[in-house]
Amino acid sequence: MPKIVDHVARREAIVECTWRLIARNGFDATGMRDVAAEMGLAHGAISHYFASKDALLLASYEHVFRRTDLRFERRGSGLTGIAALRVLAEEMMPLGDEQRLEARVVLPFWERCLVSEDFAAVHAAGIGAVLDRFGQFLTEAVAAGQARANLDVQRAARGLLSLVTGMQILAVLNGAEYTAPVLIGLLDDYVRDEVGAAVPPRG
Amino acid sequence: MPKIVDHVARREAIVECTWRLIARNGFDATGMRDVAAEMGLAHGAISHYFASKDALLLASYEHVFRRTDLRFERRGSGLTGIAALRVLAEEMMPLGDEQRLEARVVLPFWERCLVSEDFAAVHAAGIGAVLDRFGQFLTEAVAAGQARANLDVQRAARGLLSLVTGMQILAVLNGAEYTAPVLIGLLDDYVRDEVGAAVPPRG
Repeated sequence: MPKIVDHVARREAIVECTWRLIARNGFDATGMRDVAAEMGLAHGAISHYFASKDALLLASYEHVFRRTDLRFERRGSGLTGIAALRVLAEEMMPLGDEQRLEARVVLPFWERCLVSEDFAAVHAAGIGAVLDRFGQFLTEAVAAGQARANLDVQRAARGLLSLVTGMQILAVLNGAEYTAPVLIGLLDDYVRDEVGAAVPPRG
Repeated sequence: MPKIVDHVARREAIVECTWRLIARNGFDATGMRDVAAEMGLAHGAISHYFASKDALLLASYEHVFRRTDLRFERRGSGLTGIAALRVLAEEMMPLGDEQRLEARVVLPFWERCLVSEDFAAVHAAGIGAVLDRFGQFLTEAVAAGQARANLDVQRAARGLLSLVTGMQILAVLNGAEYTAPVLIGLLDDYVRDEVGAAVPPRG
């Protein structure tokens, strides 16, 4: 295997291992040594790829963000309007075990954003991209007559993001109350009552 | 001053100082030494009141929770139904500088809940209390004809909490996008479209 590929693959494996360790044990309990031990690498092997624990967390968060994108591309590519909106929202919602694990990485990341401009900038860019996408799908929905004609697209996008962001915490910390059917029901309510769209049957 | 009062007052002052330091500098950068230094106390003075940094964070979080309660009592005592619901939701929303500071303490607390059963238990109790209150006000609203007659009260309470919880993050990390008027607008949308109530003018 050429060295460049090896490097990229190894870096990816480190990030994959890291976010799962963070999800399992928490951020504070996940050091570069723990990642090395989990992967059977020598101490210090990780620092060849990531200069600091913060760099590693940042990469883990971006990885989790990309996983959502990949799931959306798989289920939602080619969709537009309300159908696309629902798929993207659902992939961001902690409905399954994997998404709940992802949400556990997002929490320490948010905390980091409070004190690090690097983290805050990555977060702001990610949030901007999600709002743009929600806005695009809502605009398509209005044009296609799937949403109310006078919908305030930006406002609806912001509301949906706030609802889904809350779910990312509540489903992880209060899973008995915020089960997957409850989360889907809240999304249905939003799509029907705020966007004015017909609630499609579960795909 | 009797010793017992002195003890209680000192403990309260420590907690008040702690949450403000956490809000300003982050949780990781706030140690018991920093709190002692800020208060002009001897090193080790804090450990007389709090056995660990976690105990101090727990107390700070409970303090922030109580501040919300006190504000609600001040503005909302005697209110019922939709009026009470709005005041409680508004006091939980990061509309002002003080509430934004409070939200900065809530984030590291949530992160702690992922790895500590003590923290998770406090969070679950707090969330349960908020859902009960939202539920009570919504039930009053239905009985008074202020909300739609067939409202699913539990579902509406969960949705409102998810929306407000999302706001606590987004207003702190994406304040340019989630300004106070935007947050109020999203609450209005929810109260009108999900609860079926008339949106009252801003008080």
